[in-house]
Amino acid sequence: MKGNQTKQTARTGMIARLVAVALSMAFAAVLEAAGPSTERGAFPLASWNDGASKKAIIDFVTRVTNAGGPDFVQPAERIAVFDNDGTLWAEQPMYFQFFFMLDRVKALAPQHPEWKTEEPFASVLKGDLRAVLAGGERALVQIGMATHAGTTTDEFGKIVGDWMATAKHPKTGRLLTEMVYQPMLELLAFLRASGFKTFIVTGGGIEFMRPWSARVYGVPPEQVIGSSIKTKYEMRDGKPMLVRLPEIDFVDDGPGKPVGIQTHIGRRPIAAFGNSDGDLQMLQWTTAGAGPRLALLVHHTDAEREYAYGRQSSIGRLDKALDEAQGRGWTVVDMKQDWKTIFPAVSREN
Amino acid sequence: MKGNQTKQTARTGMIARLVAVALSMAFAAVLEAAGPSTERGAFPLASWNDGASKKAIIDFVTRVTNAGGPDFVQPAERIAVFDNDGTLWAEQPMYFQFFFMLDRVKALAPQHPEWKTEEPFASVLKGDLRAVLAGGERALVQIGMATHAGTTTDEFGKIVGDWMATAKHPKTGRLLTEMVYQPMLELLAFLRASGFKTFIVTGGGIEFMRPWSARVYGVPPEQVIGSSIKTKYEMRDGKPMLVRLPEIDFVDDGPGKPVGIQTHIGRRPIAAFGNSDGDLQMLQWTTAGAGPRLALLVHHTDAEREYAYGRQSSIGRLDKALDEAQGRGWTVVDMKQDWKTIFPAVSREN
Repeated sequence: MKGNQTKQTARTGMIARLVAVALSMAFAAVLEAAGPSTERGAFPLASWNDGASKKAIIDFVTRVTNAGGPDFVQPAERIAVFDNDGTLWAEQPMYFQFFFMLDRVKALAPQHPEWKTEEPFASVLKGDLRAVLAGGERALVQIGMATHAGTTTDEFGKIVGDWMATAKHPKTGRLLTEMVYQPMLELLAFLRASGFKTFIVTGGGIEFMRPWSARVYGVPPEQVIGSSIKTKYEMRDGKPMLVRLPEIDFVDDGPGKPVGIQTHIGRRPIAAFGNSDGDLQMLQWTTAGAGPRLALLVHHTDAEREYAYGRQSSIGRLDKALDEAQGRGWTVVDMKQDWKTIFPAVSREN
Repeated sequence: MKGNQTKQTARTGMIARLVAVALSMAFAAVLEAAGPSTERGAFPLASWNDGASKKAIIDFVTRVTNAGGPDFVQPAERIAVFDNDGTLWAEQPMYFQFFFMLDRVKALAPQHPEWKTEEPFASVLKGDLRAVLAGGERALVQIGMATHAGTTTDEFGKIVGDWMATAKHPKTGRLLTEMVYQPMLELLAFLRASGFKTFIVTGGGIEFMRPWSARVYGVPPEQVIGSSIKTKYEMRDGKPMLVRLPEIDFVDDGPGKPVGIQTHIGRRPIAAFGNSDGDLQMLQWTTAGAGPRLALLVHHTDAEREYAYGRQSSIGRLDKALDEAQGRGWTVVDMKQDWKTIFPAVSREN
């Protein structure tokens, strides 16, 4: 029985490696088809400067994939989780989902004449963001519900997809989907080529990410975890619908991230990537497991090529997590030092 | 641009097929390593008698995998969802998770001297199931919370895994993990070999299934959707824990199933498999999408080899869903007619 088991395990392992290679090829093809992000040699980590961060990543992946070594991890257990805002794409001057909310209020305004005088909508329509933000969390939730609820899931997916196809960044003029970090795209691809299953664990809306995560990151909808509002199943004219309700279901941020990971994945990741205090618990949870672990924080240090912010920022504050990273020896990426390029090269047809 | 895209799509498709073959080999190995279930030729559907049910399955899979045909579905969209109780394994004389609850009350009783006199626990300890059930939903929730909450997720996974390793069926004496349906194991394997991603969507507890779903069904934890209680992230002596709270989070049954599918998968399945009215909405939701769809109900018609029940049963009632299946032309498996064998062959060492 034992010998037979060992043989089967070896065979399973061998086939698993074969699958990993096939998968990496498939994902490379998917990414290539997706656009410019990996047109130039993405393997392994071509846009990363040599240094402690790149070395930590490569050392970790080498250890967990070395079938003969003491730190070998079965492919099924190679789970990697990525925050989105500030980790995979930019989050300044404000979260991109907030741009969506503002544009959506404008698009819906003709159906809501009362918004001309009703706050916080009146301020949104006047473009007075300071007044909107002065309304605090309550105002943001009001705008969030008005722009995220009331549709079916199918309708909402189409709304987001259509918006994302043209929405541009106010500073760079790039499409928001081109405000992703080239080195992180390479990291996603490198991990998948090494047999990892990559998940996004975002404080943003789960259904806000799903319409484009496969195309932009190579992460399919079923591997996106995020904040959500409630949905309700109902029949309309004999056709089933999932209707989005104006009620918060789950907040996938801070201590919510390990909860979301458990709900969706059901096992502990071995690698976690974030950039702010909202990712602290995800990194704690990931690194508290037995065996080799990788925890990495992206520190925004490059005011010239992107933005420089951290301990004092209201968006993407990196304070407690930075202290903990230093104390625990987590990898901290210095964007200015560690990344050769920030954003992917983009070739425009027009 | 067009020509390049076509080439990339073709390449992606080719590699995807390569991956599908590799995956099918890997999963066959996993299933083989798991035990007896696929020792005898499982491809394709060896334990299914020729007939309308087997034909419907094979026709559907042939159509969606035929790259040149009008019904071709990209591998990424080949999502199949399976109910568990009564669809993948038996659910009579009662849901197996209820056996777990009873055994767990007994195991915890020494720490709860008050249970000797406090209902519904007193009746459980006396073995008076009639009295327990007379307590209705309230009694069941009380027992459920007492036996499912209060531990960490890691502890609970170990408790379930240990219990499942020895728990036996009261009628057949088989391990509960051997009360799975051989034809359905073959169906899972056949779909995966055809590029499908298989998910379990159970009314039972999500964390009750995850410790053994990979071994028994070849379905990893991240592809299990189920009912849940809330969990809370907390630090104990500097170590992060996810603590299970005595509060219902989500009921993955009836209209909850499409909601759970959307939350976890984020896209509509193209094939759904169930056996009771609790699966009706899942089948409605699946079949309401465009393109080829497969909906299948397992009808328990074999009193001799398993159990015969349906329209009148309190467990696994199949009434409204059976009417709808007949009206919509969904496939209804007649266990007695359609299945050559019900349970996998088991070879005992002792």
